Amino acid sequence: MKIAVDAMGGDNAPQAIIAGVERARDQYPDLEFQLFGDPAKVKPLIKNSERLTLLATTEEITMGEEPVRAIRRKKDSSIVRAARAVKEGSADAFFSAGNTGAVLAAGIFIVGRIKGIDRPGLTSILPITQPGAARQSFVYLDTGANAESKERNLVQYGYLGKFYAENVLGVANPRIALLNNGAEEDKGDQLHKAVWQQLNAAADLNFVGNIESGDLLVGKADVVVSDGWTANAALKATEGTAKMMLILIKDGILTGGLRAKLGYLLLKPVFHQIGKKMSASTYGGAVLLGLKAPVVKTHGSSDATAVANTISQIRTMLSSGVIEKTVDFFGRQAVVDKQAKNE
Amino acid sequence: MKIAVDAMGGDNAPQAIIAGVERARDQYPDLEFQLFGDPAKVKPLIKNSERLTLLATTEEITMGEEPVRAIRRKKDSSIVRAARAVKEGSADAFFSAGNTGAVLAAGIFIVGRIKGIDRPGLTSILPITQPGAARQSFVYLDTGANAESKERNLVQYGYLGKFYAENVLGVANPRIALLNNGAEEDKGDQLHKAVWQQLNAAADLNFVGNIESGDLLVGKADVVVSDGWTANAALKATEGTAKMMLILIKDGILTGGLRAKLGYLLLKPVFHQIGKKMSASTYGGAVLLGLKAPVVKTHGSSDATAVANTISQIRTMLSSGVIEKTVDFFGRQAVVDKQAKNE
Repeated sequence: MKIAVDAMGGDNAPQAIIAGVERARDQYPDLEFQLFGDPAKVKPLIKNSERLTLLATTEEITMGEEPVRAIRRKKDSSIVRAARAVKEGSADAFFSAGNTGAVLAAGIFIVGRIKGIDRPGLTSILPITQPGAARQSFVYLDTGANAESKERNLVQYGYLGKFYAENVLGVANPRIALLNNGAEEDKGDQLHKAVWQQLNAAADLNFVGNIESGDLLVGKADVVVSDGWTANAALKATEGTAKMMLILIKDGILTGGLRAKLGYLLLKPVFHQIGKKMSASTYGGAVLLGLKAPVVKTHGSSDATAVANTISQIRTMLSSGVIEKTVDFFGRQAVVDKQAKNE
Repeated sequence: MKIAVDAMGGDNAPQAIIAGVERARDQYPDLEFQLFGDPAKVKPLIKNSERLTLLATTEEITMGEEPVRAIRRKKDSSIVRAARAVKEGSADAFFSAGNTGAVLAAGIFIVGRIKGIDRPGLTSILPITQPGAARQSFVYLDTGANAESKERNLVQYGYLGKFYAENVLGVANPRIALLNNGAEEDKGDQLHKAVWQQLNAAADLNFVGNIESGDLLVGKADVVVSDGWTANAALKATEGTAKMMLILIKDGILTGGLRAKLGYLLLKPVFHQIGKKMSASTYGGAVLLGLKAPVVKTHGSSDATAVANTISQIRTMLSSGVIEKTVDFFGRQAVVDKQAKNE
């Protein structure tokens, strides 16, 4: 399995990228890497070049750049070159910690969509934090690839999420829920009411109904489907509040005198556990599902551990054959749709 | 000031309602109350009938009922009767802890909208939790009265929120922000891009730009304007995550042995402070802004303290004249609009 790596993207690049890649390489003998980047910056960081190929690029897409324009103009950037390696078949997957919009655009316009998928969905794995829950995480999409969605897109997310949960997380018959503004069947705007009906009618989906954003972490579903706008708002609010709660605790300890500091020392393992549970890097990167190959974007602030975790996730995607199964399903769907049209 | 109270609504009704009303009555000599409810249930709970009038009702709207149908059919319910008292001028404001949809419907169809307001917005006060922030709370609307909104509605929320922040929270020249999927000017779907332009062009609004849902509690704005769909999703995610963080801490303590329990005892004041800071009841009820009188819904699980806090908030609304100022502003707007049309 060959992974094309954007060595230049992210706040801690190329250091954290190279360190994470080397760690993953040492752990998984079946992985090979193509590192796209500036040799002057990347080469001195490589400790051991076993199964690493460095491919020189001359351009960089920075965090603030307008994505679509950037990938059109900067043909020799690490993002465009790595995506092209996947397109041309010399690599099996694309990894980046860089400009999210540019990675998504490179995924859609260079790697390409699976036939039958209209809009790929950005997919995150989120923690289930309810004590005693049967599972530890769930699949959540679209977290923001598309600000405006149609009925058809959300139904496709149901299938994309199902295949991902089955193959990458190993969940049998995953429970699919729809993010909505109430739990009952008749809740939501026209779009969400219509999607409810379609998901509910799909015999091959284990649809468990609506879920509200306040229950995301409770573990009522293995896959939560949403339009990109709403999922993005709920995800950012969830992350922001978790971060804020930890800030509040820290502030309370700092201003609470010796008593609070002693309490903190005793509760340190508990806080450490919660911090890990709520940390995005525990769950790997965001995958743009619906493309012909894994295109995975990890957080810009990722350290070497987060990079290595995300590469492990890509390896699972490749070895499970989740993309092939998805291609196969939507290919058969297209045949059924065509037959239905002709009849 | 006379407040019409739905004595029958809420999980702890009528006990918590009556206890809260009596507490507020004892605190504020300028308040009078009309209690709408079943005399057999309400009368035995009243300790002192000073400035309390009990008005017998024979029907009740329960939590699960379809709101609009319920207020049309149950003419002698405590919700409909209390709203009618406001409509007819025998009371100045309407308070309930009952069926949210029915309270909103009674507000819109019985109390009535301010001339010039198309869609009233459900408004909550949320905490600003960033340590060292200049202010402790902000105004957030529409938290869910309308699942689908137009440009015009969101611009009106800007003004409704401004008047509320100025008059009820005492904020001079409140900073108005738009909830959006990114901080930059060009972010969002068509609706949010258009609203950004209008809010930015309004000379009488101190518009500070977009805010993301992850920054709600940081204190970047005094009023956050949003369509009801998005604000509702972000609010529920915020509340759900705060609750989940407290559950995680509690679970860590319960399973962490003696060391963790001792740590908890030492940090108890810190957790207590955070719990209070994050509790909805600290900030009063949700106000349906844009109506001719204060219509305020407090959480169904409210205890007597939450009821008394919410009544204190209604008293501030009445004594500040916020509604009159809002009526005056939108009345003048209507004249300007009409003139513009005739020219």
